[in-house]
Amino acid sequence: MNYINATKNELKSLLDSERKKYDEIISKKLSLNMSRGRPCTEQLDLTEGMLSVLYKNDMCNLSGNTDVRNYGVLSGIDDIKTIFAPILGADKDEIFVGGNSSLNLMYDMISDGMLYGYNGCTPWAKLENVKFLCPVPGYDRHFMICEKLGIEMVNVDMLEDGPDMDTIEKLISEDDSIKGIWCVPKYSNPQGITYSDEVVRRFADLSPKAPDFKIFWDNAYAIHDLDEEKDVLLGLLHEAVKNGKEDMVFEFTSTSKITYAGAGVSFLASSVENIKNLSKRIGIRTIGYDKVNQLRHALFFKTTENVYEHMKLHAEILRPKFDIVVNTLESELGDTGIASWHRPRGGYFVSLELMHGTAKRAWQLANEAGVVLTTVGATYPYGRDPKDSNIRIAPSNTTKEELTAAMDVLCVCAKIAAVEKLLEA
Amino acid sequence: MNYINATKNELKSLLDSERKKYDEIISKKLSLNMSRGRPCTEQLDLTEGMLSVLYKNDMCNLSGNTDVRNYGVLSGIDDIKTIFAPILGADKDEIFVGGNSSLNLMYDMISDGMLYGYNGCTPWAKLENVKFLCPVPGYDRHFMICEKLGIEMVNVDMLEDGPDMDTIEKLISEDDSIKGIWCVPKYSNPQGITYSDEVVRRFADLSPKAPDFKIFWDNAYAIHDLDEEKDVLLGLLHEAVKNGKEDMVFEFTSTSKITYAGAGVSFLASSVENIKNLSKRIGIRTIGYDKVNQLRHALFFKTTENVYEHMKLHAEILRPKFDIVVNTLESELGDTGIASWHRPRGGYFVSLELMHGTAKRAWQLANEAGVVLTTVGATYPYGRDPKDSNIRIAPSNTTKEELTAAMDVLCVCAKIAAVEKLLEA
Repeated sequence: MNYINATKNELKSLLDSERKKYDEIISKKLSLNMSRGRPCTEQLDLTEGMLSVLYKNDMCNLSGNTDVRNYGVLSGIDDIKTIFAPILGADKDEIFVGGNSSLNLMYDMISDGMLYGYNGCTPWAKLENVKFLCPVPGYDRHFMICEKLGIEMVNVDMLEDGPDMDTIEKLISEDDSIKGIWCVPKYSNPQGITYSDEVVRRFADLSPKAPDFKIFWDNAYAIHDLDEEKDVLLGLLHEAVKNGKEDMVFEFTSTSKITYAGAGVSFLASSVENIKNLSKRIGIRTIGYDKVNQLRHALFFKTTENVYEHMKLHAEILRPKFDIVVNTLESELGDTGIASWHRPRGGYFVSLELMHGTAKRAWQLANEAGVVLTTVGATYPYGRDPKDSNIRIAPSNTTKEELTAAMDVLCVCAKIAAVEKLLEA
Repeated sequence: MNYINATKNELKSLLDSERKKYDEIISKKLSLNMSRGRPCTEQLDLTEGMLSVLYKNDMCNLSGNTDVRNYGVLSGIDDIKTIFAPILGADKDEIFVGGNSSLNLMYDMISDGMLYGYNGCTPWAKLENVKFLCPVPGYDRHFMICEKLGIEMVNVDMLEDGPDMDTIEKLISEDDSIKGIWCVPKYSNPQGITYSDEVVRRFADLSPKAPDFKIFWDNAYAIHDLDEEKDVLLGLLHEAVKNGKEDMVFEFTSTSKITYAGAGVSFLASSVENIKNLSKRIGIRTIGYDKVNQLRHALFFKTTENVYEHMKLHAEILRPKFDIVVNTLESELGDTGIASWHRPRGGYFVSLELMHGTAKRAWQLANEAGVVLTTVGATYPYGRDPKDSNIRIAPSNTTKEELTAAMDVLCVCAKIAAVEKLLEA
């Protein structure tokens, strides 16, 4: 039944029946969480072999002549670069290997912009206005960095094949206080959109007014496919090389959702010149990142191909969960006209667009029924969803039974919120 | 023979005989390195058991209900805090556990001062003048952070029981642009001096004009004793608590020279209030540090006592090397009057004070003979040793044979440099 065209009486009767369902749910005293993109235990268990793959002293020299236990080799060991370079679409000398957190590498690159400046320009901390473009909805932790540092965020709409490039090109060509843009180019957080080749090519040829403009290309889900039919993302760095614009690119990824969320390895890919310069800056803050863990990863995977094979095991665990989410949405909300969504071919989220002005209310109802969802607004800068419509669903760290229950609750809550709103009108 | 009182002829004959020795050395084409405090392979081998101590999936929940493989538990797992809290002289809620590098934690605390400011004060990056006090000689990597960030460094002399507290108290009470001080309070780098109880108590009761003044207490060698008779350092944090001044203290240490230089665990101890606030800031840059490695450390050591026992194994490897350094200095330079040094009871360095104006020349001669020493000046801010007299000897990562050869070279070079200088006069 389409709610939008329903009569008042139909809506009232709907509200009664959904409220009845809601009261039954409340009585179950659920405690379910779909708020964060955490891997589940079953996924973490896939990497057991890595825990002890490096178990003897004399294995610690397996990467060239480097003793991974000692200081040195700031940019990371060769073996891990060899395996992950193709995944980043970069050459080995275009890669810097960090610690367990790519978010930390992103923060450090912004912090360097703030304190030292890029391309010989004034450090951002010395400027009155610094802005970043933020395709929305997006990733809350990106936005939190900017908010905390006082970097003004400017929303840019996400379209079906990536962010609105016309707007981006216009804004950055006019305003030299725009110093960067946040992107999750493959299976974007939260919508699961992969940028089209044309969008990537336009990114690779941006002509910003600010000489120190940087693209923060958070390729967190580079190989995190759910289906055999995968999205394919064009490699930004080498596209940018074609235009001589590779200094504009900071690409990030990590093994947080390949091996361990808390104990993986992170990567930054950029121009050879940038890698040289940022290595000098990073060499001020540390003598080097954990190379024992890098070697552990290298010994466990051995080849790039094996990393892809490993991701199929993750997909087998995650795919049924995404199916539950999307099937429940389809069966419960499919013909209501109050919600839209997209089944991504990878990543960690399903983005649910509810009727405008009802997301917070639906969230609150779900919360009171014991289902924790990502806070409404978190997918927007400053926590403000201008349409109060977006809910991010993170199904990974639930059992199928929990997820089925949680999705049922969410759909009931979405219906109640929509009907309440329609009755107000 | 005392060189200072020697006649010109005596000096000329000395120069001839030392140059002859030097020419013989040159012909050996040595390649020796005493420049950095790197542990040697034998030391790194001591921790083999840690590599595979955590080898099964179901061991990853051994720290409370935390799955160390997943996101979360930003400030570190309880087990590792329990073991290292006594070493830091702190309670568990006064500790933040970082990644593999305490230098990185130090950098982050300074970077936070630059970007956010402390105690509600203006961020340092927005101020015209920011100064740090630097007891000299000191640790080059501390000084590099300040230099890179444009923080002006003010030298303070090291005395026999710590830095010159009269000068420190005077300077910080008058000048509110002084925002911090670098200290290596136990077995100081490079002199091996441990601050006396009185010095620590004076630090714990500083009354700086700047409300956002912080003591960067780099307790890198907290338990790195060489001898049974150990230096004992009074705990700064709890002394400061007695004066209600604990917000002024950032204490750091790591397991870089306990387990692995490149893959250890770092710690920050401070007031409960500071830990709460800095956790919020660190939560912007990362979802958490590597807890798998924290648990690996906890399972390997089990108790604080075992960490101390483990350090005895390091001491057995290092003590003979320190003995070679000091015995060679004694036998070769003991009666010359051109050099002084101190045999530390722990740490990683012997600091050699040569005749003023001769350190660079001695370094150059040694370098040409194939012996790499820490660059002269590196132990001072801006790389400028005002007396051109200090050479830092790092004996850890050499074999005894290499070290004996290198020390012989250094002593010959020190003699030549001194005699050349005396002949000039």
